[in-house]
Amino acid sequence: MIIVMQQNATAAHIDGVISEIRKAGLQEHVSRGAELTIIGAIGDENKLDLAHFEIMPGVERAHRVAKQYKIVARATHPQGSVIRVRGIPIGGEQIQVIGGPCSVETQAQMDESAAAVAAAGCRMMRGGAFKPRTSPYAFQGLGVEGLEFFQRSARQHNLPIVTELMDVRMLDTFIEHEVDVIQIGARNMQNFDLLKEVGRVNKPVILKRGLSATISEWLMSAEYIAAGGNHNIIFCERGIRTFETAYRNVLDITAIPVIKRETHLPVIVDPSHAGGKAWMVPALAQAAVAAGADGLLIEMHPNPCEAWCDADQALTPAELKQLMTTLGAIAQAVGRSI
Amino acid sequence: MIIVMQQNATAAHIDGVISEIRKAGLQEHVSRGAELTIIGAIGDENKLDLAHFEIMPGVERAHRVAKQYKIVARATHPQGSVIRVRGIPIGGEQIQVIGGPCSVETQAQMDESAAAVAAAGCRMMRGGAFKPRTSPYAFQGLGVEGLEFFQRSARQHNLPIVTELMDVRMLDTFIEHEVDVIQIGARNMQNFDLLKEVGRVNKPVILKRGLSATISEWLMSAEYIAAGGNHNIIFCERGIRTFETAYRNVLDITAIPVIKRETHLPVIVDPSHAGGKAWMVPALAQAAVAAGADGLLIEMHPNPCEAWCDADQALTPAELKQLMTTLGAIAQAVGRSI
Amino acid sequence: MIIVMQQNATAAHIDGVISEIRKAGLQEHVSRGAELTIIGAIGDENKLDLAHFEIMPGVERAHRVAKQYKIVARATHPQGSVIRVRGIPIGGEQIQVIGGPCSVETQAQMDESAAAVAAAGCRMMRGGAFKPRTSPYAFQGLGVEGLEFFQRSARQHNLPIVTELMDVRMLDTFIEHEVDVIQIGARNMQNFDLLKEVGRVNKPVILKRGLSATISEWLMSAEYIAAGGNHNIIFCERGIRTFETAYRNVLDITAIPVIKRETHLPVIVDPSHAGGKAWMVPALAQAAVAAGADGLLIEMHPNPCEAWCDADQALTPAELKQLMTTLGAIAQAVGRSI
Amino acid sequence: MIIVMQQNATAAHIDGVISEIRKAGLQEHVSRGAELTIIGAIGDENKLDLAHFEIMPGVERAHRVAKQYKIVARATHPQGSVIRVRGIPIGGEQIQVIGGPCSVETQAQMDESAAAVAAAGCRMMRGGAFKPRTSPYAFQGLGVEGLEFFQRSARQHNLPIVTELMDVRMLDTFIEHEVDVIQIGARNMQNFDLLKEVGRVNKPVILKRGLSATISEWLMSAEYIAAGGNHNIIFCERGIRTFETAYRNVLDITAIPVIKRETHLPVIVDPSHAGGKAWMVPALAQAAVAAGADGLLIEMHPNPCEAWCDADQALTPAELKQLMTTLGAIAQAVGRSI
Repeated sequence: MIIVMQQNATAAHIDGVISEIRKAGLQEHVSRGAELTIIGAIGDENKLDLAHFEIMPGVERAHRVAKQYKIVARATHPQGSVIRVRGIPIGGEQIQVIGGPCSVETQAQMDESAAAVAAAGCRMMRGGAFKPRTSPYAFQGLGVEGLEFFQRSARQHNLPIVTELMDVRMLDTFIEHEVDVIQIGARNMQNFDLLKEVGRVNKPVILKRGLSATISEWLMSAEYIAAGGNHNIIFCERGIRTFETAYRNVLDITAIPVIKRETHLPVIVDPSHAGGKAWMVPALAQAAVAAGADGLLIEMHPNPCEAWCDADQALTPAELKQLMTTLGAIAQAVGRSI
Repeated sequence: MIIVMQQNATAAHIDGVISEIRKAGLQEHVSRGAELTIIGAIGDENKLDLAHFEIMPGVERAHRVAKQYKIVARATHPQGSVIRVRGIPIGGEQIQVIGGPCSVETQAQMDESAAAVAAAGCRMMRGGAFKPRTSPYAFQGLGVEGLEFFQRSARQHNLPIVTELMDVRMLDTFIEHEVDVIQIGARNMQNFDLLKEVGRVNKPVILKRGLSATISEWLMSAEYIAAGGNHNIIFCERGIRTFETAYRNVLDITAIPVIKRETHLPVIVDPSHAGGKAWMVPALAQAAVAAGADGLLIEMHPNPCEAWCDADQALTPAELKQLMTTLGAIAQAVGRSI
Repeated sequence: MIIVMQQNATAAHIDGVISEIRKAGLQEHVSRGAELTIIGAIGDENKLDLAHFEIMPGVERAHRVAKQYKIVARATHPQGSVIRVRGIPIGGEQIQVIGGPCSVETQAQMDESAAAVAAAGCRMMRGGAFKPRTSPYAFQGLGVEGLEFFQRSARQHNLPIVTELMDVRMLDTFIEHEVDVIQIGARNMQNFDLLKEVGRVNKPVILKRGLSATISEWLMSAEYIAAGGNHNIIFCERGIRTFETAYRNVLDITAIPVIKRETHLPVIVDPSHAGGKAWMVPALAQAAVAAGADGLLIEMHPNPCEAWCDADQALTPAELKQLMTTLGAIAQAVGRSI
Repeated sequence: MIIVMQQNATAAHIDGVISEIRKAGLQEHVSRGAELTIIGAIGDENKLDLAHFEIMPGVERAHRVAKQYKIVARATHPQGSVIRVRGIPIGGEQIQVIGGPCSVETQAQMDESAAAVAAAGCRMMRGGAFKPRTSPYAFQGLGVEGLEFFQRSARQHNLPIVTELMDVRMLDTFIEHEVDVIQIGARNMQNFDLLKEVGRVNKPVILKRGLSATISEWLMSAEYIAAGGNHNIIFCERGIRTFETAYRNVLDITAIPVIKRETHLPVIVDPSHAGGKAWMVPALAQAAVAAGADGLLIEMHPNPCEAWCDADQALTPAELKQLMTTLGAIAQAVGRSI
C-alpha cells in the first residue's frame, strides 16, 4: 500500500502512519519529496485497511498496489485454464456457441429448439426456467417443470444444459436435475450468499458481469466462488449500462482481452442481451470472436414471434445457422475453430 | 401502447399490428401522418408485450404509455403514506435521522454508539450484522451474535433498530430477534426472491437504490414487495455509479422530488455511503433535507479510527450532534422539524 | 409527436393541446383509452416544440416520433455513400486503415512513420499538429510547422493526410496546406461554430464521437456539417466514457451496426484512443472489422518509447504490419477486403 | 510519481526505470516488497510522462501523486477568493442568485424579465444571445441584437449581465457590448482555444462543467484560463450525464464541497438545466444552497408558455420570488445570507 501524505503533513503525522504499518506487521519505506512525502507499506497488504489510513491526520490518500484476487489471477495458472463440461472444452482452441431460447415455454418448443441448436453446430444449450424480471407481474419462468422440459429435449441431442440459478434454496434442485452449467445472472453478481453456495459445489459456473460492475468487482465475485473450492468459473460479458439509450446495453468488447490477461479462466460473451435486438446479434457475435472470446451465449427461438419473453432479441434457427458459418471463418482468421 | 410504423410500412403491416392488438382484447387507434403512421392500443396495456410488436414487420418501435407500478404509485394514495416504526413516523412532517455504526463490532462499541445516537437526538439506530463485502477475504459481519449485541444496546435507549438482510434464509432469524426495520441493500435491489419474501412479512422495509438502478427499476422493485402484501416501504437513495472517480458515488438529489411525486411512500437518504468520506457527510445531509428527504441514514462511530469497516465515512458522536443542529434549522426553513 | 395526457386531464386540457397543434398547422388525432388519453400530432413535427407541450396543463409527457436528422439519414440514400479521398474509397467493399503517430514531432519521425505506414499496406496517414490536451502545461502540438513536416513525409508515399482541426480560425491554413481529411475531435463534436465552418468547405471530415455523446447527438452533429453543404462525412467511434476505470474508454462496438443502419455514411473506429494501451489495440481493431467498420484509425510510432504523447497506445511498425495480416483475414471472413 | 513493477520484474527492468527518473532530473526511491517492488520518483513530477513509464518493460502501472493544477488549487490561496462583478461579491458570505430567461427573444420580454429578476431580489441577470443547440434547424439565438436588448433592459435595474460565449471570434464583440460575466457552456468546457482566449481578458468567467467531465478535468480547464492570466473564474455545476433517463441530468451536489476543498474559487449551481423541469428547480436550488454553493443560475421567464426555448424549465416571476424566500431561510441556517 502507498500512503500519500498531505503537503502540510508534520513529522508526527508521518510517525503515526509508520506506527500503524508496523502494528500490522509490515514495514514502512518513506520517500520524502520536495512537495510530498510518500510512504510505502511493504509486506502482506491484506492486513491493512485503506480506509483506516485515509482518516489518519496528515494523510491525503492511500492506494492499494497488490491485487485482491488471488485464486483467479493469471499468475496462479499462467497458461490458461480449460473448463470441461461433459467433455466439451471451454477456454481452449475451440470456441463454444451455446444456443437456445430465453425461456423454457413448452416441451414442444424445447424439442424444436434443441434440434435447431444441434443442427446449427452448437455443442451446448441454454434456456431459462427461473427468470429474473423487472416487474412482479411478468412471466417468472416455469420453474422445476421447465428444468424437466429442458433436460428431456437437450438429452436427445446430447447437449449439456446451461440455466440460471437465482435463489440459493434451489441449488439442490439444480443438482438433482443434473444441470450441467449453473449461470449466475447479472443482477446476482454480487449476491454473495449465492456465490458462496455455488462455490461449494463441483459444477461449472457462468458468472455474468453485473450491469455496472467494474472488472475488478467482477474478478472479486469470481474469487468468492473460487474461495469456496469451485474453480470452474467462466466469465460472461453481457453489456454494461451507460448513458446511451439507442440500445439496451453497451457490449464491452475491451473486457475480453482484459479478463484474459488478468485471469486464467475463460470468458464468453452474450451478444443477445447486450444489444437487445436480433439484428444487432451477428455484428456483436462476430466482434466477440474476433476479440478473443472463448464462447458465445446466443438466443435462438424456433419462432421468435411467439416467444414468451425477449422476443425481439432471438435469432431464428436459420439465422443462427448462417451466423455459425461466418463465426467459423472469423475463428479461423484468429487461429481458432468453432 | 403506441406503435410507430416505419416510413415504408405497407397496409398489410398495419393490419398485422391491428390484428395483434385486437387479439389481446384492446382496441386500435390509427393516426396516418404525412411521414409516419402511428397506432395507439387502447385498453389494458399490461396484456401487451412491447418486444412482440417491435419484431413485427413494418414496425419502427413501440412505447409504453402507462406506468407499470400500481400499488406504490402516488395515484393510489395521493396524500402520501406515513410508515410507523414502533410509533415513530417516517414520511410526515418530522424528519427521522437514523444514526449508528457501519457494522456491529462489540457489545461495548454498540453501547457507546446507542448512547451517542440517543444523545444526538436521533430516534432510531442503524448497524450491520451481515455485511455485503466486495472481497471474500474481508470481514463479513458478526452475524446473529451481532444482532444480539445491537438489540441489547438499542433497547436501553428505546431505539428501534434497522439492519440489512442479505440472505433469504435469515429472514426468520430477523423476525425472532425483533429487527424493527429490514434493510435491503443496493446490491440486492433486484434480488427478486428476497424481495418476494420480505413482501410476505409485516415489517417496514428500507429499499436502497441499486448502484445503477433507474428510478423506474427502483419503483418496480418496491412493487415486488408491495405485491406480496407489505406496503411499509421506505425508499433510500445512497448514491449512483457514474464516470466520476473523485468520490465513491454521486448522490442523486433529484431522485428525492421525483420519488415523492411518483409514489406515496417516504424517501430517505444515506449521505455516508454516497460520498464515502466523513467530511462530505454534512454538506450532503443538509442538501437532502433541503430537497425534501423524509429522513437520513448516517454513519457514526464512537471512535472512527478503530472502526472495523468504512472507517473513513463515519462521523464522531460530536460531529453528529453538531450536524443535527444545522439539520434542524434547515428542516424549519422548509416547513418541517427534526 | 405524441402527447400523453395525465390520468386526471380534463376536456379543457385536451382542447388546449389540440388548439396548439392546429395553431402550428398540424392535425390532431385523439385516442381516448380507459386510463389515458393520447393525442397524436399529424404533419411536420419540426414545427412543434416538445417543451411547450410538456408544460401545458394536463400533459404527462410528449414524445417525438420523427427523426430530426434528414440529410444524413439512410432514407435519403439507401444504398450507402462512398467518400473518396484522392481516389481512395471509404465506405465501400475495401476497408481503409489510417496509420500514423499521435503527434507530429520531427521531420525524421514523420519520414520514418510514413515509410512504415506505407510498408504495412495502409493507404492513408494520420498525425496531429494541433493537440487537444487536458493540461495547459502539456505539449500542445507543433502547429503549422507540424503540418509541413507531415505533408512533406506523406507525399513521398502518396498518402493522403488526416489531421485534427481544433480552432475555427485555422481552417484556411488547413486548406492552404492541402490537408486531405479534416478530423473533428471528440471534445469538439458539439462545437457548433466549428461544425458550421467545416460544413462550408469541400473536404472530407472525420467526425469523432464525443466522450459521452449519444448516437442521436452524434447524428445531429453530422447534420450540422451536412446542412452547410458538405456531405463528405465519416463517423469515427473512439470509445465512450463509463464507470469502468480498468481502461481509458469503452469501445462501443454496437455503434457500428447502428450508425450503418441510421445513416448512409461510412463509420470507422479508433481502437488506439479507446483502450489507451497498445496491447489492447489488436483485439479491438479485429472486433471493429468483424462488426462491419469501414476503416480504422491506428496509432503507430517508429519508436513508441520516444513518443511525445500517448506513448503507451502506439503500435510499433512491426506490430502494425502483423495486425494488417490478421485484419485482412477477418475482412475476408465478412466479405470485404483490406 | 509512483511506479509499480510487475511481480516478475527483473533487476534490469528496475534499473531501466531508475535511469529514466534520473534522466529527468528526479530521484528514485525503491521499496522492495515480498510481492512487489514500488519505485517513487522524487522531485518535479511534471517533468515525467506517465505513459512513458507504463510502456517500459517490467512496469505494471504508474500513478501521479501530485496534482496538476497549480494556480486554481486552494493551497495557493487558502482563505478562498471572492470574485467581484461590478462590486457584487461571488464567493463570500452572500449568496448570489442570477435569474433570467434561457434566451433573449424581444426587447419587451427582456424588459419584463429584468424587472422580475430585480423584484425577486436577484442582483445579477442571465440570458442567452448565442445558443448551443443540438439541432442545426433549431433557433440559434438572436446574436448581437440579443446582446443589445439584454444590456438595455438590465441597465434599467443596474443588473450586471451574464451570457454565453461560444465562438472565439465573438470575444471582442462581448467586450464592446460590456458583457459583465462571460459564460463558457458545458459543451465548450474543453474547447481549449476558447479557454485560452478568455484567459487573456480581464472579465469574470463562469465555467460550466462538461456533461461528463470529471472534477479533475474541470479543474484543469479552469487552469487553462488561469494560466493565461485571468483568475476571475467561477465554477458552475449543471448536472452530469448518467444512465438515468427519468430526468435530463443528475445534479452532482457532491461536487460543491469537493470543488470548495480543491480550489479557492467560488462554485455556483444551475438547477434549471440539471433537472430540465421547472417543478424540480426549487428542491435542487435549496439543496445547492444547503450544500454550500456560492450562487445559483436560475431560469425565469415572464411567460414560460411563450418561451422560445427550454420552456419547461423556466420558473415564473412569482415562483422565483417565492423560492428566494425559502433560499434565504436555508442560507441563514448554514450561516450565510442571500
